[in-house]
Amino acid sequence: MNAALLVSYDGTALSGWQIQKKGRTVQGELESAIGRAFGAASRVTGSGRTDAGVHAAGQVCNFALADEIQIAPERIADALNTFLPPDIRVLASARAPEDFDACRSAKKKTYRYTVYFSRREHPLLARYAARFGGQPDLARMRECADRLEGEHDFAAFSAAGSSAKTTVRTVHSIDLVPWADEIGEMVCGMHFDVCGNGFLYNMVRIMAGALLDVGTGKLPLSAVEEALSAGRRDLLGKTMPACGLTLRSVGYRFDLFGGGKITE
Amino acid sequence: MNAALLVSYDGTALSGWQIQKKGRTVQGELESAIGRAFGAASRVTGSGRTDAGVHAAGQVCNFALADEIQIAPERIADALNTFLPPDIRVLASARAPEDFDACRSAKKKTYRYTVYFSRREHPLLARYAARFGGQPDLARMRECADRLEGEHDFAAFSAAGSSAKTTVRTVHSIDLVPWADEIGEMVCGMHFDVCGNGFLYNMVRIMAGALLDVGTGKLPLSAVEEALSAGRRDLLGKTMPACGLTLRSVGYRFDLFGGGKITE
Repeated sequence: MNAALLVSYDGTALSGWQIQKKGRTVQGELESAIGRAFGAASRVTGSGRTDAGVHAAGQVCNFALADEIQIAPERIADALNTFLPPDIRVLASARAPEDFDACRSAKKKTYRYTVYFSRREHPLLARYAARFGGQPDLARMRECADRLEGEHDFAAFSAAGSSAKTTVRTVHSIDLVPWADEIGEMVCGMHFDVCGNGFLYNMVRIMAGALLDVGTGKLPLSAVEEALSAGRRDLLGKTMPACGLTLRSVGYRFDLFGGGKITE
Repeated sequence: MNAALLVSYDGTALSGWQIQKKGRTVQGELESAIGRAFGAASRVTGSGRTDAGVHAAGQVCNFALADEIQIAPERIADALNTFLPPDIRVLASARAPEDFDACRSAKKKTYRYTVYFSRREHPLLARYAARFGGQPDLARMRECADRLEGEHDFAAFSAAGSSAKTTVRTVHSIDLVPWADEIGEMVCGMHFDVCGNGFLYNMVRIMAGALLDVGTGKLPLSAVEEALSAGRRDLLGKTMPACGLTLRSVGYRFDLFGGGKITE
């Protein structure tokens, strides 16, 4: 069976998705759980990597489950959760078409980057959001987001050492979602919900930083346009911290965990 | 100076508010930071204790700062944060009236208890919310909450070993706030925002459990009424886990951190 998993993880204490020699990784923990639950190792293919410290609410992956294993597809989740550490959980499992590949079949991904605006750290926000000291202007950020939406060469929004064949990606939408919550004192912040057909290494984190810097006026909009057209990473600000980033969902041509209905 | 602090903490790795021989406590960490920042130890008085694992967004405390220390009251926060561990932060500091006592002067407190409804654990929710397997009915819960609001003897809603002189408390309001969020799959949950003039040991956690059990029909409303009138803890369900509870705010007759204006 080609088994697909919907996986959530708190990336704080994880060394990212991809298996490596040192540190706990999501792929490593999943492969280990598969070995313990089903008695045979299997390579797990994720929709894409996430970095150390990055969270996922709806990562998708698949693996080959030996045909001799008798289990209802929707029960695979519970079987694996028994052997997973508490910061990684399979939320749902399903039988996928034989040619389904969580990476190659992915049509779009949605990431959320969350910041809160404060001069001081907030212990109850710090785990899943990055602190930003400034008070950015929403209208200016929106104007910048409009420029970034669409198909562009996002080379400027990619960390060095990226091995992507092409740096052209389509960003379908960037939603700027202000929020406020009374955390002792009233704290304001913003979610950046970014949906695209694929993302380069560190792309959302560089994008969030550039939007914030444009919002405070530290970075002129023209510098972002210049960076985009010339592929110059050096014109943009620093990469925002991993803790604020969550992979929210991965979209395929069909609803994998809701019965396989074609979604588009 | 009688210095007042607004404090937030992530209770996950803390052994509660009150200083004790073993384990890190909020009071212990604050007193240690005061000693290191100002060179002299001082006893810190909190608005009340919170248990191991319970969070605070707006705990309030006060301590006597020696008159020879020259510091603007609002700068005390930063001075202490330098010496506090990352899971505890002073959000604001102010000079309080000489007769202010964070415990005895407290007029009301607001706690939030958060649950999510799911058969499976969610790593991104588990730190600040408790999982509840059932799907409770909001109208039944509201009916039960109506019975609990007001002045009552809450002996049934108190853990054994409580040393309170009286178990009569006034619950000003219980707000049931449903929420939904797309965490991989759509997850629903509820906040219980409970405001009162004071709370017994474990009172909010027992209350949240009783409301949920009434919501699913596991506990009849009449059992809650009987428990309340007869002071019988044994008629109610189990105490909900500490991780779902957050002390949101403590109210005084004046706005301590907003210039001292009288608030009522």
